[in-house]
Amino acid sequence: MTLRMYGFWRSIASFRLRVALNLKGLAFEEESVDILHGSQFTAAYDKVNPAHSVPSLVEEDGHVLLQSLAILEYLEETRPRPPLLPAAPRERAYARALALATVADTHPLMVPRVRSHLAAAFGADEAAVNAWVRHWVGEGMGAYERLLSRRPPAPFALGAAPGIADICIAGHAMSAQLFAMDLEPYPVFKTLTERCFALPAFASARPPGAR
Amino acid sequence: MTLRMYGFWRSIASFRLRVALNLKGLAFEEESVDILHGSQFTAAYDKVNPAHSVPSLVEEDGHVLLQSLAILEYLEETRPRPPLLPAAPRERAYARALALATVADTHPLMVPRVRSHLAAAFGADEAAVNAWVRHWVGEGMGAYERLLSRRPPAPFALGAAPGIADICIAGHAMSAQLFAMDLEPYPVFKTLTERCFALPAFASARPPGAR
Repeated sequence: MTLRMYGFWRSIASFRLRVALNLKGLAFEEESVDILHGSQFTAAYDKVNPAHSVPSLVEEDGHVLLQSLAILEYLEETRPRPPLLPAAPRERAYARALALATVADTHPLMVPRVRSHLAAAFGADEAAVNAWVRHWVGEGMGAYERLLSRRPPAPFALGAAPGIADICIAGHAMSAQLFAMDLEPYPVFKTLTERCFALPAFASARPPGAR
Repeated sequence: MTLRMYGFWRSIASFRLRVALNLKGLAFEEESVDILHGSQFTAAYDKVNPAHSVPSLVEEDGHVLLQSLAILEYLEETRPRPPLLPAAPRERAYARALALATVADTHPLMVPRVRSHLAAAFGADEAAVNAWVRHWVGEGMGAYERLLSRRPPAPFALGAAPGIADICIAGHAMSAQLFAMDLEPYPVFKTLTERCFALPAFASARPPGAR
């Protein structure tokens, strides 16, 4: 048996986990949970993940792990090579802060359940919902541009090798690509994410719509 | 010099950091950043935190740390006693997943910049914005009730002592209190958060409006 992941092709959080598994060289199978059509809310998936989110990771013995960033930390603790976090506490803290700049600040604002509720609560049509998403993706890219300009990637966010920060930053770029946004106003962010997507671990985790 | 924190009285993320500092027994001073009036976007605060979020933590030598959850992990790595995360990797992963259930899934949907943008983008009035917040706080409490019912607190989320999961869960309860919501439909969640707020480390971190 290999690791089994519940994910969805265009889920940014699923992308993060796929890249981490790829970078760690861990084989996995992916089972699709169609979050655009509410499959995350079914009784069957509730048994796997009571938080009704993707991804979930199922280990060989059936143990289930939830929340992309928690799973990345777990992989780092249990399969430490190659490392996805630096060794020094301040560097680890900065890597996590960069990750959370999208995981906690912008990505939650554009997931399907939020887009649906914008329509339900405010009568937002598709164009208005897409404008909402683009606003927050832009805010997130702006924040990354400010952060990365203050400490330029060399060549990745924390140094020589890609890690958790780069994974989350590349996921944010994937959001921008899925919503056909221009990355030119964010040159440091753009260059870093292009560097990530030049790696097979990132490129193969990205869905066809985001290229 | 002691630790210096930039925060805001009713910020849930600032609450998380206050509780962690209290539980670790670390003295700190707090400087207010009025996120209801845009002080997080000033040039002065940009120098501290280019992501324009609260809290930020400034160490004795001036080093700045960003993002509440990243700061909690950093405190855990640098001031490990008392621990706020369990020792076993699967337990640590579950603690982080519980934390992220609000940090990544619901809290980002109700911060001031999002409430302002709901008004700007959809003409939402105060009642509509409050209904939006209450919807997501309710969704978050529902998720916690499902998660905590499957593995009941004993007596805290991960066992004998409060930690990162309890801090984030209590912060979610604080959101519910700030928006005058009923916790009765979520009895396991309610009991756990009452247990947290019975501790001075939690109670003293909570603003007057959330009681």
